[in-house]
Amino acid sequence: MYSVSEMANDTFSALAHPIRRSIVERLAEGPASVGEATRNAGVSKPTLSRHVRVLEDAGVVVRVIDGRTHRLTLGIGPLTEATTWLERQRARWESLFDTVEDYLEEREENRT
Amino acid sequence: MYSVSEMANDTFSALAHPIRRSIVERLAEGPASVGEATRNAGVSKPTLSRHVRVLEDAGVVVRVIDGRTHRLTLGIGPLTEATTWLERQRARWESLFDTVEDYLEEREENRT
Repeated sequence: MYSVSEMANDTFSALAHPIRRSIVERLAEGPASVGEATRNAGVSKPTLSRHVRVLEDAGVVVRVIDGRTHRLTLGIGPLTEATTWLERQRARWESLFDTVEDYLEEREENRT
Repeated sequence: MYSVSEMANDTFSALAHPIRRSIVERLAEGPASVGEATRNAGVSKPTLSRHVRVLEDAGVVVRVIDGRTHRLTLGIGPLTEATTWLERQRARWESLFDTVEDYLEEREENRT
């Protein structure tokens, strides 16, 4: 019955932590080194590495290795899939309210 | 440094399970009883209750009690907040590519 892939599952899990969302926010401004992307998080390096790893495993963050330089960049596919799913639910929900409103308006008109 | 509230945190956690997303998908079509919303999930009642509870705790699902009837409905606030956050990151990321494209086009023009 599952209509959403496991990819979306990993994406939502990956985004379910404020430190990981702050890394995504930083990378939305452009590619960055691990140090730049995780600056000011106020937690230890191993903790940060773990959070980056969770984002990489979900494909939300992609690591580009160029010699000794590691750059992090956003993996836009998973983010787009998650956004599309959320938007679809909201659209269906909103169209439901339109239907209810139409019904109430019609009923009101029939009364007068 | 966290620019996203804890509400979004709970929302993404709540959506990070396929059974919980299938409940949200069902409720996007309209309010439903617990039985209707969790039909065909293929797991035990206690497991379903736990998933519904996670959604309720996050405010993604709201329970309306009318006498002996319990109806579940979507709590649209948290869903909207999560969607807004995702859309913002994507928009910033896309505008970044526009900037890079503009730069490359300009450089190309200066060359000719």
